[in-house]
Amino acid sequence: MNRRASVAVRALAELDTCGVRMVNPGKVSAVRAAMPAPAEVEDLAEVFALLGEPGRLRLLTALLEGGELCVCDLAAASGLSESAVSHALLLLRARRVVSVSRRGRMAFYRLDDAHVRMLLDLGLTHTEHTSALAAALAAAPGTST
Amino acid sequence: MNRRASVAVRALAELDTCGVRMVNPGKVSAVRAAMPAPAEVEDLAEVFALLGEPGRLRLLTALLEGGELCVCDLAAASGLSESAVSHALLLLRARRVVSVSRRGRMAFYRLDDAHVRMLLDLGLTHTEHTSALAAALAAAPGTST
Repeated sequence: MNRRASVAVRALAELDTCGVRMVNPGKVSAVRAAMPAPAEVEDLAEVFALLGEPGRLRLLTALLEGGELCVCDLAAASGLSESAVSHALLLLRARRVVSVSRRGRMAFYRLDDAHVRMLLDLGLTHTEHTSALAAALAAAPGTST
Repeated sequence: MNRRASVAVRALAELDTCGVRMVNPGKVSAVRAAMPAPAEVEDLAEVFALLGEPGRLRLLTALLEGGELCVCDLAAASGLSESAVSHALLLLRARRVVSVSRRGRMAFYRLDDAHVRMLLDLGLTHTEHTSALAAALAAAPGTST
């Protein structure tokens, strides 16, 4: 980011800080006590980071729609190479985002559990909802500049 | 990754590819037709990537527990500096993960909608579930090496 852009971002960020600095110690200690442990937050961040890469996410949406698919089908559906698919699946298996079962000479992958399926569904609902909002705001009279 | 480790990872990845390469064209085209558009996958990946950073995720779990918090409270609850908090909130607002409302000289942040709250809850359920599974497997007789 160049200097001017970085000054603009800082100014924008400061717009929505408080005009008066005042920590609410009771509320802060209640929140800290209820927050997940740092190790749990790190684990969760790793899962979200795995989902935060478009290639891996294409594989996961293919499994969301296809149920069970082998590496060859996943490569064909996602447009990734078989070796990229294998590598991504290895990372996703390590975090139990996908699981594999072998039948004869074939290996089939699926989303590991209902949580993962719901995470993807919810994420897609959120992005559809925010795109629809952005489109409505852009189309509303008096909001265009 | 050194050469030996990278060979090991490749070998492991290849363990679970198919022994026979066979694409199921009917299934693949049905899956491709049902998959979200590439732009939608990119948008969703950006949201997950935002959640995939431990500092930002600490802020979000503080909001999950605290409901509404100002920048000062968020900094105290998360252990981040106020300027890091402001910058993270700016990114999270741009993707409608959090929203802000001003009351007098104070600015309060909250999770933007129920989807975001459910994404975090589900993610935490997934990591708790997988840690519990890992602990059970580690403790089960005959599985330790």
